[in-house]
Amino acid sequence: MSRVRLTYRLDDGREREVSAPEGVTAFDAASWNGIAIDSTCGGHGTCRKCGVRIAEGTVEPTSLDSRAYEPDRLRDGWRLACRAVAREDLTIDVPPLVTRPKAATVGVGRQVILRPAVQKRYVELDEPDLADQRTDLDRLLHAIDDLEPRATLNVLRHLGRTLREADWKVTAVIVDELLIDVEPGDTTAHRYGIAFDLGTTTVVATLLDLSTGAPLAAASRLNSQQPFGADVITRISATMLDPEALPRLRDLAHTTLDELTQEVCKEASIDPAHVYEIAIAGNATMTHLALGIDPEPLGVAPFILSTRALPETTATDLGVNVHPSAQATVFPALGAYVGGDIIAGLLASGMDRDRRLRLFIDVGTNCEIVLGSVAGLVATAAPAGPAFEGAAIRCGMRAATGAIETVRLTPTSVTLGVIGDVEPRGLCGSGLVDAVAELVRLGLLDASGRLVTPDQAGDLADHFTNVNGERVFTLHDEIYLSQRDVRELQFAKAAIATGWTLLLEETGIKESEIAQVLLAGSFGSYLSPANAIRIGLVPRLAVPRVVSVGNVAGEGAKLALLSLRERAGASALMNEVRYVELSDRPDFNDRFIGNLAFP
Amino acid sequence: MSRVRLTYRLDDGREREVSAPEGVTAFDAASWNGIAIDSTCGGHGTCRKCGVRIAEGTVEPTSLDSRAYEPDRLRDGWRLACRAVAREDLTIDVPPLVTRPKAATVGVGRQVILRPAVQKRYVELDEPDLADQRTDLDRLLHAIDDLEPRATLNVLRHLGRTLREADWKVTAVIVDELLIDVEPGDTTAHRYGIAFDLGTTTVVATLLDLSTGAPLAAASRLNSQQPFGADVITRISATMLDPEALPRLRDLAHTTLDELTQEVCKEASIDPAHVYEIAIAGNATMTHLALGIDPEPLGVAPFILSTRALPETTATDLGVNVHPSAQATVFPALGAYVGGDIIAGLLASGMDRDRRLRLFIDVGTNCEIVLGSVAGLVATAAPAGPAFEGAAIRCGMRAATGAIETVRLTPTSVTLGVIGDVEPRGLCGSGLVDAVAELVRLGLLDASGRLVTPDQAGDLADHFTNVNGERVFTLHDEIYLSQRDVRELQFAKAAIATGWTLLLEETGIKESEIAQVLLAGSFGSYLSPANAIRIGLVPRLAVPRVVSVGNVAGEGAKLALLSLRERAGASALMNEVRYVELSDRPDFNDRFIGNLAFP
Repeated sequence: MSRVRLTYRLDDGREREVSAPEGVTAFDAASWNGIAIDSTCGGHGTCRKCGVRIAEGTVEPTSLDSRAYEPDRLRDGWRLACRAVAREDLTIDVPPLVTRPKAATVGVGRQVILRPAVQKRYVELDEPDLADQRTDLDRLLHAIDDLEPRATLNVLRHLGRTLREADWKVTAVIVDELLIDVEPGDTTAHRYGIAFDLGTTTVVATLLDLSTGAPLAAASRLNSQQPFGADVITRISATMLDPEALPRLRDLAHTTLDELTQEVCKEASIDPAHVYEIAIAGNATMTHLALGIDPEPLGVAPFILSTRALPETTATDLGVNVHPSAQATVFPALGAYVGGDIIAGLLASGMDRDRRLRLFIDVGTNCEIVLGSVAGLVATAAPAGPAFEGAAIRCGMRAATGAIETVRLTPTSVTLGVIGDVEPRGLCGSGLVDAVAELVRLGLLDASGRLVTPDQAGDLADHFTNVNGERVFTLHDEIYLSQRDVRELQFAKAAIATGWTLLLEETGIKESEIAQVLLAGSFGSYLSPANAIRIGLVPRLAVPRVVSVGNVAGEGAKLALLSLRERAGASALMNEVRYVELSDRPDFNDRFIGNLAFP
Repeated sequence: MSRVRLTYRLDDGREREVSAPEGVTAFDAASWNGIAIDSTCGGHGTCRKCGVRIAEGTVEPTSLDSRAYEPDRLRDGWRLACRAVAREDLTIDVPPLVTRPKAATVGVGRQVILRPAVQKRYVELDEPDLADQRTDLDRLLHAIDDLEPRATLNVLRHLGRTLREADWKVTAVIVDELLIDVEPGDTTAHRYGIAFDLGTTTVVATLLDLSTGAPLAAASRLNSQQPFGADVITRISATMLDPEALPRLRDLAHTTLDELTQEVCKEASIDPAHVYEIAIAGNATMTHLALGIDPEPLGVAPFILSTRALPETTATDLGVNVHPSAQATVFPALGAYVGGDIIAGLLASGMDRDRRLRLFIDVGTNCEIVLGSVAGLVATAAPAGPAFEGAAIRCGMRAATGAIETVRLTPTSVTLGVIGDVEPRGLCGSGLVDAVAELVRLGLLDASGRLVTPDQAGDLADHFTNVNGERVFTLHDEIYLSQRDVRELQFAKAAIATGWTLLLEETGIKESEIAQVLLAGSFGSYLSPANAIRIGLVPRLAVPRVVSVGNVAGEGAKLALLSLRERAGASALMNEVRYVELSDRPDFNDRFIGNLAFP
């Protein structure tokens, strides 16, 4: 995938230089980089407002350009930006804006020009008479000059009645290219969408005002599929054992999504019928289950997806009770273990639009690692195991109330941070990493991962005891870190480190060249960058270069709702990311063993 | 709409000259006229088998042509016929056929090349492995080289399981551009569709084998909506009076369609799950009601359609229980009173592909009249009233068992033809026309429409009596033709005659120039051409030039199932037919009164 350099010359004299994949339009590349170009149709080539002048480089005029511009202007380089495909480096003059497009900050500090798929148009129509017998639909569409949607059967069913009862004053509700409703009167002020991060453990919903980009309410709850297993593999296994499990898991996903929907709508006092689109970012298994797609091939070698890009789906297909014809945008998956959540995360963190060398790590049971550079993106998945979820750890628990999430050691003291400030009940993933990193720092755990004996532990000797014949480090009363827990963490971090080490080798890049590491996922956001470096989970960089970016999958889902361009960017990402299977490499085990030790 | 002349030079030395609307492709025009050109993709530009040489005239090569042909061949005039748009008269060399396409005779003697929207492809796929992790969908689509469908969510739901359980040997079921199913094993032998003529009174279903074009079973039954009224206006009124009427009428239409479906499948011993598409030709009101679209604007001036072309619909939307993802093709309507039945009828009778001057008359309560010539088609509707249905006639009845359908008079005798050869129970529309025409022929009814007195009736004097003070002509016992019945028929035929008279004036064509009159609709097929001429219902032509063409709407529905080209032809017809509103013309009433008399 080669890239081109586009220099936008703005009317205030500023210049903005961006890098974009060859073949994108000047409009998309601008939009992706927060450069505003006039447009009301959102790049469908119908509004003809996105004119720019190609000052350097060549863009062949399209038939739309020939209709939009006189020959003189065409020769002078004027083109519709939404049709101007960049095949080489270009310098582009952007005229002053006629309308000031709204923008919102979403994702990892990304300034996004608002152009949601959901559009409303208020129109006042002439009544038909014998001299003007246009159909109701033609009359309506003719009055909307900047969009050319097609109608659904549902709209047609009541179109005639609505037009007449509303005295021909109606609001058309359009989602991308579909006319999904015609509402009486002017309802343009009500235009909402819900972005979902559909996680294996937790599901998060954010209600967005699509007119302003503002989040109006957010809520999260546990995925109701939990009783079928904590991770994707156990849930897939359930469907293989019991034919009733798939419909049941689907319904549970629907219940979770719908409960969150009603919760955020209630919190913001919004009528769910004014929610016209939802966006969902989830891993491939969660997405398959929510749509009722048989997930078995995802769970057994060679790990096959049913499809990458999904067909048009509706909120109803996902059990979400909002507007009855609301559409659903489900992020496509790149592979069985690089799902829509990762694509959404890459979008939200702008991994494809940054010329710095960056490493994106979504830490979890299955860990996804993506290396981004001017040369494109390479991705892989590393089976880290459940250590970070607190499973397989003696006193492990999920990051919930009572979990020790931070551990701070001095040679004489142990200080614990507990979620909810209650009596500690167990140790969650970030507490595990903290505990191990602090023990390493104080020399109480050697590089090979062995806990010292009490006589080597100085003032902390009391904390080093045996439980069932195994050496442990006691954190609080009954809660301890065992020698085997340390081994579990070593396996997990070695898998991740092997992943990025091999990706670096694959691309011929040195560890020291990495400009930034993004730690994503709910676990990544709790992880202390310093300790992540200390245990060797991430490359050895200066601490400020390791950044917890939080729930980027959810941010990606918001982007998809707020901007058609960003959504197109997600599709483009599918072609820009190269997946590398590492698990079958002959040198994988050697590397893995080499990465077990602490740095 | 201008037309072009295309001369096809076949490999057996024959030449075929056809006229086609400017802008159609060489492939479509050939297909419409029964000229076979190789193709397996059906004109999607993917199979590259439809090459022809443009010997005279110019067709600009498209990007597909440039990929399909070397520059030498391009210069020599080689083009993909499915992409070769005719903008001027052309002479086209058609190479010998590699595959012999199947054809069927449908409609008014139309030879149609079979290319149904429903296609099946049997494939045997390679199993995936870690070196080939293509998605299940990509693997399947890659194995189908001549079609590029998109998948429905329903297919994806079970795709993985089906592929694996069937050991990667499956049959893809494609309807136009949609992959609707993947069936285990080779099911290519089973490919069916059902064509419906959805009439206000009667609904007819024909089950077609889409591999051969052969009809396997046909059935008809009364439209279950009858209790809501005999004609479209009373049914529309019902929906205006009672909000429950529309869903009820919709359900009744669904019941009728589904009962017929199960009946034809049973008769032919076909599994309804192997029916993948249905096609429906009906008037605008029947179509609106069946789809649950509010019909009120159709029933009141200015008579407005919700839409002409309908969105993608499924058999499920129409209550038809066949394959759960079966598609439905519903013929578009041109106006509130020129519905999909007329478009289907025009298609089946080839009105747009004949250079003769032809008049198409669908006789019924609402009578549609279309005049076709090289200059295109003009259509109008004439409110003939219910006389032809036997309503408003003293002894009138529908054309059912016991109805007098033919009447033959001599100066001394009356001979009746009765449906079912039983004792006569009443007089249906064709019997009415026969009786009046015979009375006119023998001078027993004068030109003004007055029945003679008994003393003027010779040996038939006994038949001329009075009932309730009204002069009548007795046909059999209690069954008679009254003076007022004659008036009803005069009104009906005058409305029709005024329709075609004004169409002729509108187009500057003389009655004598008409080459052929097609009488369509179930009533038209029972009507004797000689008597239709005698009472002035049709222009005064030699009897053989007036042809009863039967249920052409149903034939059009069959064509839509058998050929994507024909279906495209129906869409093209929408742009070729110009609707002329006659009822608001100032000279309408004058003409109407002038047409009341018998010729």
